[in-house]
Amino acid sequence: MPIAIEMSFAFRAQQPTDVLLQFEAAAIPEQQLSNTRTSLSDSPHIARIPAQDTIGERIWVRAEGRFEASYTATASIERVAGTLDELGAVPMRNLPGEAAPYLFDSRYCPADRFQSFIDAEFADRSGGALVATLHDWIAKNFTYTPGSSGPNTNALDSFVERRGVCRDYAHMLITFARAAGIPARFVSAYAPDVSPPDFHALAEVFLEDPAQPEGGAWYLVDATNMSKPDQVVKIGVGRDAADVSFLTSFGPTEFLEKHVSVRQE
Amino acid sequence: MPIAIEMSFAFRAQQPTDVLLQFEAAAIPEQQLSNTRTSLSDSPHIARIPAQDTIGERIWVRAEGRFEASYTATASIERVAGTLDELGAVPMRNLPGEAAPYLFDSRYCPADRFQSFIDAEFADRSGGALVATLHDWIAKNFTYTPGSSGPNTNALDSFVERRGVCRDYAHMLITFARAAGIPARFVSAYAPDVSPPDFHALAEVFLEDPAQPEGGAWYLVDATNMSKPDQVVKIGVGRDAADVSFLTSFGPTEFLEKHVSVRQE
Amino acid sequence: MPIAIEMSFAFRAQQPTDVLLQFEAAAIPEQQLSNTRTSLSDSPHIARIPAQDTIGERIWVRAEGRFEASYTATASIERVAGTLDELGAVPMRNLPGEAAPYLFDSRYCPADRFQSFIDAEFADRSGGALVATLHDWIAKNFTYTPGSSGPNTNALDSFVERRGVCRDYAHMLITFARAAGIPARFVSAYAPDVSPPDFHALAEVFLEDPAQPEGGAWYLVDATNMSKPDQVVKIGVGRDAADVSFLTSFGPTEFLEKHVSVRQE
Amino acid sequence: MPIAIEMSFAFRAQQPTDVLLQFEAAAIPEQQLSNTRTSLSDSPHIARIPAQDTIGERIWVRAEGRFEASYTATASIERVAGTLDELGAVPMRNLPGEAAPYLFDSRYCPADRFQSFIDAEFADRSGGALVATLHDWIAKNFTYTPGSSGPNTNALDSFVERRGVCRDYAHMLITFARAAGIPARFVSAYAPDVSPPDFHALAEVFLEDPAQPEGGAWYLVDATNMSKPDQVVKIGVGRDAADVSFLTSFGPTEFLEKHVSVRQE
Repeated sequence: MPIAIEMSFAFRAQQPTDVLLQFEAAAIPEQQLSNTRTSLSDSPHIARIPAQDTIGERIWVRAEGRFEASYTATASIERVAGTLDELGAVPMRNLPGEAAPYLFDSRYCPADRFQSFIDAEFADRSGGALVATLHDWIAKNFTYTPGSSGPNTNALDSFVERRGVCRDYAHMLITFARAAGIPARFVSAYAPDVSPPDFHALAEVFLEDPAQPEGGAWYLVDATNMSKPDQVVKIGVGRDAADVSFLTSFGPTEFLEKHVSVRQE
Repeated sequence: MPIAIEMSFAFRAQQPTDVLLQFEAAAIPEQQLSNTRTSLSDSPHIARIPAQDTIGERIWVRAEGRFEASYTATASIERVAGTLDELGAVPMRNLPGEAAPYLFDSRYCPADRFQSFIDAEFADRSGGALVATLHDWIAKNFTYTPGSSGPNTNALDSFVERRGVCRDYAHMLITFARAAGIPARFVSAYAPDVSPPDFHALAEVFLEDPAQPEGGAWYLVDATNMSKPDQVVKIGVGRDAADVSFLTSFGPTEFLEKHVSVRQE
Repeated sequence: MPIAIEMSFAFRAQQPTDVLLQFEAAAIPEQQLSNTRTSLSDSPHIARIPAQDTIGERIWVRAEGRFEASYTATASIERVAGTLDELGAVPMRNLPGEAAPYLFDSRYCPADRFQSFIDAEFADRSGGALVATLHDWIAKNFTYTPGSSGPNTNALDSFVERRGVCRDYAHMLITFARAAGIPARFVSAYAPDVSPPDFHALAEVFLEDPAQPEGGAWYLVDATNMSKPDQVVKIGVGRDAADVSFLTSFGPTEFLEKHVSVRQE
Repeated sequence: MPIAIEMSFAFRAQQPTDVLLQFEAAAIPEQQLSNTRTSLSDSPHIARIPAQDTIGERIWVRAEGRFEASYTATASIERVAGTLDELGAVPMRNLPGEAAPYLFDSRYCPADRFQSFIDAEFADRSGGALVATLHDWIAKNFTYTPGSSGPNTNALDSFVERRGVCRDYAHMLITFARAAGIPARFVSAYAPDVSPPDFHALAEVFLEDPAQPEGGAWYLVDATNMSKPDQVVKIGVGRDAADVSFLTSFGPTEFLEKHVSVRQE
């Protein structure tokens, strides 16, 4: 079942300002895109660069005055959604250079500080079974609370206050997974059934790939339970939300509006 | 003048523990290595993976009991040490995918929070001249104070307390540069004249490359003034210290000793 | 010239909840109150207790459903507003037990961390002249920005981001003063010309009292410059905003509305 | 059984520095002191002031060069050590002005952030039974780890890392209790069996007093389980450790040594 995406946002820059955008569905094998259309306000300079891990693209624009971006696309997802419980961990010595950086602390995910907690509470599990348990712990203990977090809220804050929005849920799961020695990254995405409608955020963990005995693969995990992995349209990935914001401004801008619609057709 | 490196460290793991090491000088064009010798305690599994931006390598080991690593090498540096003041900024639209991630906030470098400070104090400068000014601001206002910082100290802490060690100085400069829209990364290195002798940490900023009108290059900056760019032997790079620790343990270990000697021959 | 105060607010508690209120002008010698009228929704338990330093009162209520509080009063201020510049510091050995606790770190004022900054930038001044300089530093470097701070914002955050609202300005001044060895406390108040109209927050510093050679007195300082000390109607004092909130709820409540009007008659 | 205390410490101030000391056992009804002897290095100014809640005294000294303080005393404790489990909470409306400030957030105890956790995990208990449960939670989940915390470590840090020393244990219990609406304060003390020998820190909670139907009383709780309430010799109390340090220096000092011996005779 294809997924139809319609998205637009607008902001205002009083003076010429460099802005980095990332809002298009990524052209990667697991998602087939059609009818894509990106529309941007006039800008003296527009440049596209590959985004992190070459998943998706970022767009540099130079904005002045009101600036609008809009995007429509239809995506068909062909993603193998493994049952986490049955997947083993990739032995650390087999972690490739691509996955190892996702073990380290990042802006919103100070994983190192959670080693004691993880060791004390979850030492009896590993790999996908551990990730499933971490997912359930967050789902059980967190309350989805729009407005409760902000741009400075990290996983330590969320852990104490036990609430947040999708980005905070993703940060918590990523932090826990890394503390347990499992590479984990942040995924920005479109997904149906996200309420209120908006960009969505999930985690992705690196576990064994039954198809490659010595290798591994990334698996989506949504601690909010709002999306299903086979309906998630990935925009981009990163260490955490700092890497895949839909809008990063290098100067003062005023955000005006945003509309996101994602429907299963 | 070649630089002679001798380094060793030891730690103890009570139970089998995965540890990621990164301590060898990177085999990159700007530094010619000879007489290199790496020695590690016996381990059931040793695996090398490319480190960040393919600068240097990381080594996975599985340690149990006392574990020792030692390294010797001689390095000849052929690095163009430009005068920062004369280098312009790379226009953001020309920043390649490789450099853009070094604009984002990382574990120890919450750059976004410093935009007001940078705008208010340094708005009249840009590019290399701005980096030189930021370097001088730190050198003037910070006091090098061994023991004053720890594994949780970020650039916000250092900014307020105005003190730290080389890693804190590097984090501060990286944070300031990113807040000003200049990509900046963390460099772990060997350098003579570091006092007390230890691994060293510096920043690297991405500015225009006079040899490539449309491109850019990375330039070393040492806010501590302890090293000279043409005597720095790079080990690896990362978003910040979280990415290039010489030892990252995924389980409890007891650190025992470390010896670092770096001499100009 | 008397100052006329009209204030009301309302909140809702889904279940019986203990709430501590503090919104009445304090009955202290320096402010003569008339026509005071306090009105509260019905509550099974209402109890008044003296507030901090016996300045003003706190009111315990047990709220359920919609709860409203309103207050009107007219205040005449007879406060000696000394010229800060001419007041010396009270030697620490003469600081009374009443003032000494206001040297210590509190929730929003981690003064200890600012000793290096204060010593480096302001070592040539002391007493009232130093306070005036600290006031001017904040007034010059901070931007009054409604919405930029929240309940977790402390003086360290404000110092880095250089912005905030009246409570953040007060926290910054208190933090600086304590770091310089000058007792400082937080004052909740009504004042005309506060924009937008709301409760106001200021700092108070303990300096010498020309009338008592061996003693000292508290002096109001408003880093926002929105109020004049001889027009400030004090509600209460505390270590910082944690101590003198107009509403502290010990259970979940939904805040509904607030109206504050303060006019010079 | 009397408790014999011997304590000494020394520090050095390069230039004349004001220092506030608090190390003597408090002269309060519940502890009878004999053979007390306080010895201080010469100081041009020594002044005693009442400490917080008039429990104990603080001593101002002006130090230059090496400064030593020593203290010996014998204390007999006559404290009613109630069984926490049987004590009810004091209804908030009955909390006196003396106890209410100990509900608020302080430097190391950001209680407000823990309301969700307390409500979710411990909603079925109240009063002394809740305090006992909180004590047991900390005792079970925390690991006593000398060196793991520092002067900036607050209860949020300890909660995440699940370790610390006596001061961190006390901060955690105080934070939890306040989040549950129970006034709690920090107690600095001498106690036998503290290992390694040092000043000790505990919490004190305000619960009903069976002897005064409408009132309440303070009860000692030691989350580390190292001391027994009837062997604790109180030095002073405060919001948290920021208020009752044995040495608070208002200028740079170098700490040299400390010896604490507390024995049951």
